[in-house]
Amino acid sequence: MPLRYMTAGESHGPCLTAILEGLPAGMELHEANINRELARRQIGYGRGARMQIEKDRVELRSGLRFGQTLGSPLTLVIANRDWENWKAEMALTSPRPKRSQPVTSPRPGHADLAGALKFNQRDVRNVLERASARETAARVAVGAVCKVLLRHFRIEIFSHVVQIGTVRANVAKHSLRQIHQRAEKSALRCADPTAERNMKRLIDKTKQDGDSIGGIFEVIATGVPAGLGSMMTWSERLDGRLAQALHSIQGVKGVEVGLGFESARRTGSQVHDPIRFTISRRAMPQGHGPSGGFYHSSNNAGGIEGGMTTGEPVVLRAVHKPIPTLKKPLPSVNLATKQSVLASKERSDVCATPAAGVVGEAAVAFVLAQALLEKFGSDSINDITANFNAYTKRLSEL
Amino acid sequence: MPLRYMTAGESHGPCLTAILEGLPAGMELHEANINRELARRQIGYGRGARMQIEKDRVELRSGLRFGQTLGSPLTLVIANRDWENWKAEMALTSPRPKRSQPVTSPRPGHADLAGALKFNQRDVRNVLERASARETAARVAVGAVCKVLLRHFRIEIFSHVVQIGTVRANVAKHSLRQIHQRAEKSALRCADPTAERNMKRLIDKTKQDGDSIGGIFEVIATGVPAGLGSMMTWSERLDGRLAQALHSIQGVKGVEVGLGFESARRTGSQVHDPIRFTISRRAMPQGHGPSGGFYHSSNNAGGIEGGMTTGEPVVLRAVHKPIPTLKKPLPSVNLATKQSVLASKERSDVCATPAAGVVGEAAVAFVLAQALLEKFGSDSINDITANFNAYTKRLSEL
Amino acid sequence: MPLRYMTAGESHGPCLTAILEGLPAGMELHEANINRELARRQIGYGRGARMQIEKDRVELRSGLRFGQTLGSPLTLVIANRDWENWKAEMALTSPRPKRSQPVTSPRPGHADLAGALKFNQRDVRNVLERASARETAARVAVGAVCKVLLRHFRIEIFSHVVQIGTVRANVAKHSLRQIHQRAEKSALRCADPTAERNMKRLIDKTKQDGDSIGGIFEVIATGVPAGLGSMMTWSERLDGRLAQALHSIQGVKGVEVGLGFESARRTGSQVHDPIRFTISRRAMPQGHGPSGGFYHSSNNAGGIEGGMTTGEPVVLRAVHKPIPTLKKPLPSVNLATKQSVLASKERSDVCATPAAGVVGEAAVAFVLAQALLEKFGSDSINDITANFNAYTKRLSEL
Amino acid sequence: MPLRYMTAGESHGPCLTAILEGLPAGMELHEANINRELARRQIGYGRGARMQIEKDRVELRSGLRFGQTLGSPLTLVIANRDWENWKAEMALTSPRPKRSQPVTSPRPGHADLAGALKFNQRDVRNVLERASARETAARVAVGAVCKVLLRHFRIEIFSHVVQIGTVRANVAKHSLRQIHQRAEKSALRCADPTAERNMKRLIDKTKQDGDSIGGIFEVIATGVPAGLGSMMTWSERLDGRLAQALHSIQGVKGVEVGLGFESARRTGSQVHDPIRFTISRRAMPQGHGPSGGFYHSSNNAGGIEGGMTTGEPVVLRAVHKPIPTLKKPLPSVNLATKQSVLASKERSDVCATPAAGVVGEAAVAFVLAQALLEKFGSDSINDITANFNAYTKRLSEL
Repeated sequence: MPLRYMTAGESHGPCLTAILEGLPAGMELHEANINRELARRQIGYGRGARMQIEKDRVELRSGLRFGQTLGSPLTLVIANRDWENWKAEMALTSPRPKRSQPVTSPRPGHADLAGALKFNQRDVRNVLERASARETAARVAVGAVCKVLLRHFRIEIFSHVVQIGTVRANVAKHSLRQIHQRAEKSALRCADPTAERNMKRLIDKTKQDGDSIGGIFEVIATGVPAGLGSMMTWSERLDGRLAQALHSIQGVKGVEVGLGFESARRTGSQVHDPIRFTISRRAMPQGHGPSGGFYHSSNNAGGIEGGMTTGEPVVLRAVHKPIPTLKKPLPSVNLATKQSVLASKERSDVCATPAAGVVGEAAVAFVLAQALLEKFGSDSINDITANFNAYTKRLSEL
Repeated sequence: MPLRYMTAGESHGPCLTAILEGLPAGMELHEANINRELARRQIGYGRGARMQIEKDRVELRSGLRFGQTLGSPLTLVIANRDWENWKAEMALTSPRPKRSQPVTSPRPGHADLAGALKFNQRDVRNVLERASARETAARVAVGAVCKVLLRHFRIEIFSHVVQIGTVRANVAKHSLRQIHQRAEKSALRCADPTAERNMKRLIDKTKQDGDSIGGIFEVIATGVPAGLGSMMTWSERLDGRLAQALHSIQGVKGVEVGLGFESARRTGSQVHDPIRFTISRRAMPQGHGPSGGFYHSSNNAGGIEGGMTTGEPVVLRAVHKPIPTLKKPLPSVNLATKQSVLASKERSDVCATPAAGVVGEAAVAFVLAQALLEKFGSDSINDITANFNAYTKRLSEL
Repeated sequence: MPLRYMTAGESHGPCLTAILEGLPAGMELHEANINRELARRQIGYGRGARMQIEKDRVELRSGLRFGQTLGSPLTLVIANRDWENWKAEMALTSPRPKRSQPVTSPRPGHADLAGALKFNQRDVRNVLERASARETAARVAVGAVCKVLLRHFRIEIFSHVVQIGTVRANVAKHSLRQIHQRAEKSALRCADPTAERNMKRLIDKTKQDGDSIGGIFEVIATGVPAGLGSMMTWSERLDGRLAQALHSIQGVKGVEVGLGFESARRTGSQVHDPIRFTISRRAMPQGHGPSGGFYHSSNNAGGIEGGMTTGEPVVLRAVHKPIPTLKKPLPSVNLATKQSVLASKERSDVCATPAAGVVGEAAVAFVLAQALLEKFGSDSINDITANFNAYTKRLSEL
Repeated sequence: MPLRYMTAGESHGPCLTAILEGLPAGMELHEANINRELARRQIGYGRGARMQIEKDRVELRSGLRFGQTLGSPLTLVIANRDWENWKAEMALTSPRPKRSQPVTSPRPGHADLAGALKFNQRDVRNVLERASARETAARVAVGAVCKVLLRHFRIEIFSHVVQIGTVRANVAKHSLRQIHQRAEKSALRCADPTAERNMKRLIDKTKQDGDSIGGIFEVIATGVPAGLGSMMTWSERLDGRLAQALHSIQGVKGVEVGLGFESARRTGSQVHDPIRFTISRRAMPQGHGPSGGFYHSSNNAGGIEGGMTTGEPVVLRAVHKPIPTLKKPLPSVNLATKQSVLASKERSDVCATPAAGVVGEAAVAFVLAQALLEKFGSDSINDITANFNAYTKRLSEL
């Protein structure tokens, strides 16, 4: 059966919940696998006060026994620690308290106005609670489980920040492994220390101005076998599915694969990756996955051709717009009176792009895990591993 | 029921076929609506010889009676005129002719290698025939039908080329209507005549070099009501769904909405679109759709916030990489012998970005039509129109 | 967006969880609406000890504010009160306790053997925990929410038991309303008191024999408008979707619509329901929904023709097999030793058919709610109601 | 990628078309495989004149090369030979001819009325053309391809008629193989010659009366491995999916698995199938598929427990109601005038239950093929076969 998930939960409600179904049985899984990813989402220079309040911890409530998956749906619950302060204002079933005031000024850059119109709401809080990026914690938890699955097949996923505002990182001289390690140690998840310093300065200044700033993160998956996804029908193409998963992250306004928008500027002979063959695993490019002895001498394609993985690392970049809730609010309109007002303020961060990168990893992990199970079958991690190994053996004997 | 479609057909097989289901009944539809779009896909400076061979014409084979949709699945068939020359080489059921030679050199930049590994093929033709962008003709036909549906709700979609190679168009001073009209008249679907001249020169030079070139196209939908798509679950967010549809077009390596990657460079106050209100329809920005009297004084969001349309024009850009089949082929490896060779050559174009833009319109039209039916219901075009009108009336009375 | 749900949870795990997405905003909903249905699932003559332990109560954890739906996913949690006694044996992440013994004898009639083979399990508990009908409590909770939605459109759903073992109920002389009321008052959910007495006797005797017994329940939906579901594609036909939902209930081995299997015995003129017209709402058959003035003078079709509702009550019957866990266990085989053994025993009921009927109501409620939203659109209960009313007005003016 | 299909086409339009996607590459396929099944659907005592007109032949238009699947979508076209006579009355795009008369009297027992209300049609022909069982020819073609796939895994599917009107077949003393062979030779697809004679007499008499008659058919799949489908989520349970596929066949009003409705009458100990083990393949029950050495000494479950196959033959029965178009038409109402009239007549059969059985085989073949690919992966028939063999080996070594 297909790998699928749903998330639920409002930003200031009691908790976030996710159900993930279609996992194979027999896979070791610990809450620590998930909590580590939740923590990675919460660090980052430029985060606001809430990150201090919420030390996210997952509680697993189904799908496991004695530390092993059962093949049944996994329930992942992340409590909202702030709920204590919101019990009256966000009461699920009791009536609205007398002192409660509706939010009537939709914030530019947010779902507020479109959501209020669509769902017929006069109190913008009824919209913003679900639209909030708080929901991504649930996706990171789901992605953490998918990463555990992918690790059985030696597929690893990491992210790093390549741009904040106008400051770009330069990692051209580093190996993938170095980029990964450096990003994990950086408060901004940036592998270039010089750039990181400038990014911090920019964030500080932006904070002083009561403004916000975004950036670009890159997600890289290594060890991916050739042949995930499919060229046979538009909806199965892997780049489309990955792009959907990344675009669906709150604040993402663009996604590119490999060279991406730069491919417009070059000619075909400067873009397409020459095909090579080697019998030596060591001669393979870094991060290369099973593909027989075939490889590409460059990876401008970002590891995807024709909607399928090529065996080279999957490389995706996404742009994360500045957070829309500003200390100096933008012009808006009161929903009830239609008078010009300033947008309402919710507590917020100055820059959440490093966190968005961690969410991006989760999005990529889910899609790759789903595509992997489509190709190699379901139900038992041992069976799937055997099928995977038979395939890579077939490729190597081509 | 949901709007869905499938396409089928190999590039040099007898025909392409699409089935589109979930259309409402009672909608006028003519083959001319579709043929016009097929023709738009085929023009364009820089196209190769095949475009002369194939004057695509759709044949409708179900779903209509007396020029009106029945609500039943539509069958759209586009004959491959070149089939006459390929009957033996692409025979469906008769055996391989003796003189037929397998294609053994996968082309860099194409699905060839990944597809051969995945589907266990030694003859790359078994892969490339379906991976070819010829399939997009079927998508354009489907999109043409969706455009007819959207026109009932005064939603219009057009595209224009904003970059070829390093040459960028400048359309800042033009209205949307002007951009649309100029693009329709241009051989490169470019609204800036100066840029167009330079683009042609670049294409000519690229052709002389035996190389290829790509570019960036922009798709714009006007008249879109606020509230299509949904913020409630990741898979329903409209930007994600649009990005998937565009990324699934052969050769697309990046998609951005509104400001897109530029939003990384700016602060929040320079990115988010202030919210305004007017009771005068005329005071609305150009291309604005129903949203009560609310509008935004800029459209950096590209008409989508929180995965929902805002009422402003939906603006998407996609990068289309240079065509991978080159006259001067790139290095490859013989699948059987593992010897280094040059990639095989298929007849091809130098630049197909203008055509890709037309395919992009189709992709956007399908997703918007699907989202519109989700919101306003199904079955009869009159019922849906009544529901749409009741909604826009509700918004205007807010 | 489509109405969808997932359930999760093991029978002796901490809780069952369901997420229901695609609900419109602005709908009043109380936990009492759900708890009442959970209680209806738990009563019934012939239930075992567990029904005493579990007094199911739902906890809503997202999707609502101040007693109204937000249009966001609903989280429904039902604690397993028995969890206290199973914390070690069903620990999610801590290791297997030393005293814990695997279940090695698969029970005939259960998922045990097929599940152990498929998921590669040696301990049958790893299979039976999710396969258990305990999971249906989550479906009843979801169905209860769908019933609340349907009630906005005056659609009501009830069930009654028409057969236990060889004892059949006779309700031919009662109105639908009477059947409904009598079933609600009966310990076996049977509207025929004479039959009920005999059913109880049969259950008592079966219990004495250490055996179990099943039966047939009928689910009836009244007030359903003509035109839900679709004839246009196989997967959208409403009878197929309802049959899937009912067949997916643990223990159901057959489903029929209207006359069902009896239609094989009769000629066409004795089966098909004559079509009539009246301008008087009162002259309509009982339980009739909006269909203009058209009605049928009989309802052998069970309210569905061509995969669409006809406006007559939707009538479905399902057979629920005897519970597979027997006090006198059936022959089985030890998974490890392959020796013949008796099947393992889990605490169980003698007859759960009345409860299965309540689950059947939930299954039907979900499918009808989903089909209703497909036809009338999404997002706001007021908008959907307006669309529904416009449709029924159109029918009445035909 | 998942196995999926769509069908399109009106009963008197130019053709039926189906697209089937998700097939593995490398599978031999001939039009004869499909034409044989199309012919099986058309024979049968009690069929009307149209069966003489239409000698259905498939034309494959994509997805194959040199008699082998490419893994790309298959296009299957079946011409409607009657189209010649309907070109004006069913013109797709030209206007309604002057002499053309709308059909205004909906036929009881058909989609006519519900469809006219739903799709806002005054001419019932706009409804009945797609609702007609003619569409099942396309499903039989799709099912024929699925049968070819299943045969790679030694899974065979056949059907036989077990009841026409009140006449029941008795096949208790025959092996599955005998039932299959006898059914193939019978004009009514009935394996009991005595019953067949009585059925023919009943059909003759029914024809004389201007009436119609239905019956019950049984579909049996042998060689099915244990573990297809899943118990983990309601929508993946195989019995539910099979029931949907069968219920979606025009005229089917009930489906049962194994003992089906009879299980209501028996106690648990008489219903549930004891589990046994043998190391001798020969000692296995007939039609048994791979399940290690485990088997059941009876098959009341019809080969499905917990929504998964058990390794025993999958046995399903469906009731097919009498054809609704009668020579002596039933009472109806003129859609325009609301006057009582007799229903309109379309040319039709007296009894189509044997054909419905062949359609039932196709429905079952599709669902089993889909579930098989979910479990064993996709893309290359050789890879899938290897995965299947590894699984059955794992079971046999349990």
